[in-house]
Amino acid sequence: MGGGVDHLAPERNKAEFDVDSLKIVWAGSSHDLQLSERMSRLVASDPAFRKDNRAILGRKELFKNTLRKATYAWKRINELRLTEEEAYKFRTFVDEPAFTDLHWGMFVPAIKGQGTDEQQKKWLPLAQKMQIIGCYAQTELGHGSNVQGLETTATFDPETDEFVIHSPTLTSSKWWPGGLGKVSTHAVVYARLIIAGQDHGVNGFIVQLRSLDDHLPLPGITIGDIGAKFGNGAYNTMDNGVLRFDKVRIPRDQMLMRISQVTREGKLVQSSVPRQLVYGTMVFVRQAIVADASVALSRAVCIATRYSAVRRQFGSHNGGPETQVIDYKTQQARLFPLLASAYAFRFVGEWLNWLYTDVTQRLQAGDFSTLPEAHACTAGLKSLTTSVTADGIEECRKLCGGHGYLCSSGLPELFAVYVPSCTYEGDNVVLQLQVARYLVKTISQLGSGKKPIGTTAYLGRLEQLLQYRSDVQKAEDWLKPNEVLGAFEARAAKKSIAVAQNLSKFSNPEDGFQELSADLVEAAVAHGQLIVVSKFIEKLQKDIPGKGVKQQLENLSSIYALYLLHKNLGDFLSTGTITPKQGHLANEQLRSLYSQVRPNAIALVDAFNHSDHYLGSVLGRYDGNVYPKLYEEAWKDPLNDSVVTDGYQEYIRPLLKQQLRNARL
Amino acid sequence: MGGGVDHLAPERNKAEFDVDSLKIVWAGSSHDLQLSERMSRLVASDPAFRKDNRAILGRKELFKNTLRKATYAWKRINELRLTEEEAYKFRTFVDEPAFTDLHWGMFVPAIKGQGTDEQQKKWLPLAQKMQIIGCYAQTELGHGSNVQGLETTATFDPETDEFVIHSPTLTSSKWWPGGLGKVSTHAVVYARLIIAGQDHGVNGFIVQLRSLDDHLPLPGITIGDIGAKFGNGAYNTMDNGVLRFDKVRIPRDQMLMRISQVTREGKLVQSSVPRQLVYGTMVFVRQAIVADASVALSRAVCIATRYSAVRRQFGSHNGGPETQVIDYKTQQARLFPLLASAYAFRFVGEWLNWLYTDVTQRLQAGDFSTLPEAHACTAGLKSLTTSVTADGIEECRKLCGGHGYLCSSGLPELFAVYVPSCTYEGDNVVLQLQVARYLVKTISQLGSGKKPIGTTAYLGRLEQLLQYRSDVQKAEDWLKPNEVLGAFEARAAKKSIAVAQNLSKFSNPEDGFQELSADLVEAAVAHGQLIVVSKFIEKLQKDIPGKGVKQQLENLSSIYALYLLHKNLGDFLSTGTITPKQGHLANEQLRSLYSQVRPNAIALVDAFNHSDHYLGSVLGRYDGNVYPKLYEEAWKDPLNDSVVTDGYQEYIRPLLKQQLRNARL
Repeated sequence: MGGGVDHLAPERNKAEFDVDSLKIVWAGSSHDLQLSERMSRLVASDPAFRKDNRAILGRKELFKNTLRKATYAWKRINELRLTEEEAYKFRTFVDEPAFTDLHWGMFVPAIKGQGTDEQQKKWLPLAQKMQIIGCYAQTELGHGSNVQGLETTATFDPETDEFVIHSPTLTSSKWWPGGLGKVSTHAVVYARLIIAGQDHGVNGFIVQLRSLDDHLPLPGITIGDIGAKFGNGAYNTMDNGVLRFDKVRIPRDQMLMRISQVTREGKLVQSSVPRQLVYGTMVFVRQAIVADASVALSRAVCIATRYSAVRRQFGSHNGGPETQVIDYKTQQARLFPLLASAYAFRFVGEWLNWLYTDVTQRLQAGDFSTLPEAHACTAGLKSLTTSVTADGIEECRKLCGGHGYLCSSGLPELFAVYVPSCTYEGDNVVLQLQVARYLVKTISQLGSGKKPIGTTAYLGRLEQLLQYRSDVQKAEDWLKPNEVLGAFEARAAKKSIAVAQNLSKFSNPEDGFQELSADLVEAAVAHGQLIVVSKFIEKLQKDIPGKGVKQQLENLSSIYALYLLHKNLGDFLSTGTITPKQGHLANEQLRSLYSQVRPNAIALVDAFNHSDHYLGSVLGRYDGNVYPKLYEEAWKDPLNDSVVTDGYQEYIRPLLKQQLRNARL
Repeated sequence: MGGGVDHLAPERNKAEFDVDSLKIVWAGSSHDLQLSERMSRLVASDPAFRKDNRAILGRKELFKNTLRKATYAWKRINELRLTEEEAYKFRTFVDEPAFTDLHWGMFVPAIKGQGTDEQQKKWLPLAQKMQIIGCYAQTELGHGSNVQGLETTATFDPETDEFVIHSPTLTSSKWWPGGLGKVSTHAVVYARLIIAGQDHGVNGFIVQLRSLDDHLPLPGITIGDIGAKFGNGAYNTMDNGVLRFDKVRIPRDQMLMRISQVTREGKLVQSSVPRQLVYGTMVFVRQAIVADASVALSRAVCIATRYSAVRRQFGSHNGGPETQVIDYKTQQARLFPLLASAYAFRFVGEWLNWLYTDVTQRLQAGDFSTLPEAHACTAGLKSLTTSVTADGIEECRKLCGGHGYLCSSGLPELFAVYVPSCTYEGDNVVLQLQVARYLVKTISQLGSGKKPIGTTAYLGRLEQLLQYRSDVQKAEDWLKPNEVLGAFEARAAKKSIAVAQNLSKFSNPEDGFQELSADLVEAAVAHGQLIVVSKFIEKLQKDIPGKGVKQQLENLSSIYALYLLHKNLGDFLSTGTITPKQGHLANEQLRSLYSQVRPNAIALVDAFNHSDHYLGSVLGRYDGNVYPKLYEEAWKDPLNDSVVTDGYQEYIRPLLKQQLRNARL
């Protein structure tokens, strides 16, 4: 990681634990760590994957450059004969949104998940060799969150045994699908299935969009890019697209028929494959989003932590060096909870991955009993972790002072690339309302003896939790996992029951849901925070090897919980869960924990094992050699190509010389 | 404002107040409203000022385009013989960061404020005709917040009667000044004044940077642009610069000498002009930042509110239209507090403007007594309003769903242009610590009988406030200004006194300040929120003409306060200011206020009177004709110049045809 002087070596020497052991914990296993290191190095060492020029390219050059990288990556993946797992990691470290994300992440899985065996046999080999490139065309100009509101139609024509795909209105234009705008040859298109005038709801269809000979859109198809998006570089490397159909015909066998089939006679037949499988896929996608959240947050935290150790402001005594900003308690109080959150999200993501496997195995065995709880749980955690991560990246940017505003800090692009996570795969507020509905339903069924399961199991002890009063007496009591768990369970339970009781006052439950929706969201968030807190604690009950590693993680676990307690103090107090005095003690303990994390901070972010290429940040360089490199980077801007600026003769000179009258402006 | 159908007319018809009257209240006066309308129209109607292409231009084209606009704006300002007030507004509506901002906003005022009469006579006419272009070179690569830590030196050479300006280290490179990188011919440079080996601290110097003949940097001067910044367009239109001096000589009379002079003999002499004038300037700059915060927030809120009325999701009954998202309580609970904040910041900004005038008059009369309080007050309000506005713009973007991520929504650029406000002119956390110090000092002096003044006057009633218990009994009680004021005063006072008491436990006060700094920031924020709440209430005690206008503002004032109360419930509860029950009542009242605002929401944002050009947002169009225009905008992206994308032959075709072996990638 760089051959020069390590300016952060004094910081690394302070660490009180074995960094290499923590690297394995973070990565998940030695295998994962080694895999990541190998793939990361392959990408970082190849100049074809440089990414420091993204912020200065115009849209066209940027996009073309991404096409080159994506194609080259595929070439390398083949040359190196990478496994699927390796190829995925390889693409991750290329670190640039591209059409391939949708091809591999949505198009191929959609065919796998929703296609019959026959359909899979026909389409998967083409897709897997990239002889066709596919995208996932679901959202429409007027329809995002509400999939059931999609307007595109697929009308069965029994005469020709075809579906006619059509965009009946402007708002039915497909809008947003990545890879659609300029690249994809095919799409899985979601459309309302219409048979003999009857609407059978939304189904998926494989539709060819462009000619495989000359890449021109096929007859009846209008496609384009939807234009520039937030940020320099960022998702502007992706051709999010718009798509309209003018009565485009596809053969009947291009409807994805694993769950429902349309017969030659136009009869709709349900297969024996359970519909719930769709929810299994949702669980998969959302657990991946939670895992991504921890990575995105860890990148921002790594940059901000390293630069906070490099940067000095104020506090100089007698002309000596100024104070490292990481030594300021205000900096610690903003930064360390985010550091703790990155670890918390990592572990809850790990657990969600287990949950997905568990649910899948059950589904295959015909056991759907855990699905609703797993669905609610992943929805809530997707919402919680992406919201915190998006805000956290921006907070890390602010923690870097003015220089965080430079693209060379890496933070602006990290933010712009990340924020869509709060909206896609379920708007974060809509998802929390789903969680809240599940919580209210769970509570309403308690009377009938139905035992809540999984992450809602604590609601089975409702009586007891409603009586809960914390017995914390001194600051260190807050380090006890049981004290933390008890308080978070009681607060979540009391919030849920309070809103459930208020709901019961409405004669029409839906009116109640609407009127009290902001309270419902709060209850769902309290429940989600409890899950993250409890999974962090569970993780620490397992064996964690490596000198001092467990102690560090315990500190972070406490910081995560006590920070949330402080931030949501109103909840804990108004529910009578803790007293103001106990709130003060938590705050006191938090300050002490910050001091304990401080000497370990650099090593704790080193454990993420991010390469300088992946971080893409001058401020977050492993060697801390920030200022000379910032200075160097500046000169690469195209504005510095010439000493006298382009535009001097036309605009600046006439201005200075008072010769504007005849200037062409 | 557009000649077609007004899709929002039904919304406008619902309004229960006279919009035109509120426009005057928002603008400040009929004069201000008319002025803004005239200038706004001049800019919007001139195609030379179009700004919808900013997101897609590369850095070089973008910058050159800004040079053109800035020069053309100056030409128009002269042709139209605009007054200074008009010219300022005109530039505001051009709405593009440019070197002229620094020339007029920092360079000229620095000479006015810190130059002697003679210096002003020499330099101001040149600057005012733009025969020279100036910038403000203060921050350095290694020194932002801490001005006293600047390293650039200005060494007096008695032999030649010159100062030698020098950059002794890499970190002393001037870094960030806008207009420096490629345009300015002159700068006010801040450097340590060294006379006969003695360091006399930081002073300002007028330094010529570039030749007035050919624009080349003068000998010994290295200048460049510091590279790309956050966002598409945004501040990339500005040439923030880097500047190094290699022993550059300037005549002695180019030190700004209004406050201190260096004589021919090298003696440092203080003038009779009080140093405190510098703080007067700070008060001016920060009150302007608060005013800008209200405008920036109002733009985002206007876009999000209008689009929330246009956009429909879910809730369709029997195939009817879906529900307008503005009707969802979750949407209201996020949007309306921001709407209320925009108005709150507007009125506190208005009051700060009065405060500046008051302070200036006092300073001229030799009365410095109100300066420290005014300084603390503006520092806190700068911090509070810019933080809320930056977060608020991003929240508005999220409130627009996926489409808020498109540059054509206007929100990404609004955010990227706005966020530096949280860092420049005093980092927001550093500023709150200054406020906290002032509060602690004020409290410590209470015993000695020193009466707190201005916004801290309430601390004079400390005994009484420490006993305060809210007597709210029903939800509507929270509409009473006295109930709100009482609770906010008590909470702020109790927070301040608590941290002051904790501080007194430290033997070294500075250790205490460091250890408790996060608590100190919280106390300062509570104080700042009280100021905004109380100034909103004060505004409503004046006569406000126009049917129904006062009622609307009263609703917004209540929303602003009760939303803060709900968000900071922990403070109010832990200080015993209110009971949990009273907290619930506040929340209940809040929900009812949202329902009252709902029918007036569109009219309340119409009252900002933002033109479609100024908003620059398809989602926020006055006529609500969003979807056809979004669709239209998409096709303007350069990627849509050709149907088959640039890069198809080189990259996509070889991929699809499995011909990568020999492809040049």
